[in-house]
Amino acid sequence: MAYDLWYWPTIQGRGEYVRLALEDADIPYNDCARNDGGEDKLVKLLKKPSDTPSFAPPFLIAGKKTIGQTANILLFLGEKHALAPKGDAGRLWVHQLQLTIADLVAEIHDSHHPVASNLYYEDQKDEAARRAKDLRENRLPKFLGYFNDVLKRNGSGWLHGKSRSYADLSLFQIVEGLRYAFPRAMKTLERKTPQLTKLRDRVAERPGIAAYLKSERRLAFTREGIFRHYPELDAD
Amino acid sequence: MAYDLWYWPTIQGRGEYVRLALEDADIPYNDCARNDGGEDKLVKLLKKPSDTPSFAPPFLIAGKKTIGQTANILLFLGEKHALAPKGDAGRLWVHQLQLTIADLVAEIHDSHHPVASNLYYEDQKDEAARRAKDLRENRLPKFLGYFNDVLKRNGSGWLHGKSRSYADLSLFQIVEGLRYAFPRAMKTLERKTPQLTKLRDRVAERPGIAAYLKSERRLAFTREGIFRHYPELDAD
Repeated sequence: MAYDLWYWPTIQGRGEYVRLALEDADIPYNDCARNDGGEDKLVKLLKKPSDTPSFAPPFLIAGKKTIGQTANILLFLGEKHALAPKGDAGRLWVHQLQLTIADLVAEIHDSHHPVASNLYYEDQKDEAARRAKDLRENRLPKFLGYFNDVLKRNGSGWLHGKSRSYADLSLFQIVEGLRYAFPRAMKTLERKTPQLTKLRDRVAERPGIAAYLKSERRLAFTREGIFRHYPELDAD
Repeated sequence: MAYDLWYWPTIQGRGEYVRLALEDADIPYNDCARNDGGEDKLVKLLKKPSDTPSFAPPFLIAGKKTIGQTANILLFLGEKHALAPKGDAGRLWVHQLQLTIADLVAEIHDSHHPVASNLYYEDQKDEAARRAKDLRENRLPKFLGYFNDVLKRNGSGWLHGKSRSYADLSLFQIVEGLRYAFPRAMKTLERKTPQLTKLRDRVAERPGIAAYLKSERRLAFTREGIFRHYPELDAD
């Protein structure tokens, strides 16, 4: 039985972390909102009374369960599909890494929307300039340095143990997204975080991911998503 | 064997969600950084090489495990100490709620620090005024309305099933914190979210929580924490 994934059909957004896990592990799924009329259906589903409503997409329908929150969906998939370690210690550690990635994703989003998500970027450009500077100069070095250290210490090329987990796939997406949004800053940052660059390449070469990236299922980065390229927010 | 909790010793912050769970379930723990010299030790621990380093406090030492990220610590405690349902569906649903609370906590924090955490509030007052307005008028009604609906639908007075989970305790802290930070806005908001007010009262009356709130272990809300009272950011 294929899972039903519900997420906005025109952006990678937070749904992409789930898509990458499903694609890498070759798990059948329907990206439901990408069908005709799918976005309207998604909006209706979000408003429909439910015992486990989601505050926002993505959510995954797995038989009788409807599971929301990206990191929670990955926790579920990790347990069911060997996308994370089985043991308690490894399972919690990988989830901890994913939650730190989620924090980073929120900070990246807010660099172009520091005042309000429902205002246009153009209405908060000055604030975005200040916040993006802090992101480039303080937050990204701290976050990327952290993940680089974890990779270096583990030594296998993956964040934990000897095989990839959903957190590795999500970290790939972080590198890809940041390269799109902040190409100049990333050139500088990646020089100091070579382990991240290697992880990115390693994930890109995995058969499921390589096929996905070439397919129409992979949406392009755009100025509607979390990672947005505004040249005025980037710097060396 | 008591757990070792490590968190900044002078603020409630994100550590408070863990403290409330430990106190409610009467789980022995040391709030390590509150001992003499504890803050220096915490800073040293954060820099010490580790197989499972935390990006930021809180983290919990449980025997050989060191577990970071608030929601992840609660996931662990929930499984071990009946602070969450045992079954897969309930366990994931409660975690989903906790992750939505974590999103709300980050948005509340950023209402007084929309540009950068490491700048003073005074250096981002104009931006904070805009962001706090959006928080009061759009985000809080949406988040609090969501949790009110979940409580109403479940009907037992708790977010899930017939007993409290760590998510209920965290939601108590949200109400308390928002009452401190935005007393005027909350007066209006709580009129529309009576289930949240009832939940707050119900949690406050639990023996472990009532004893904790009266004790010296409960720190006061201050302008150093996540919930900060700046009258100029509040409004009816």
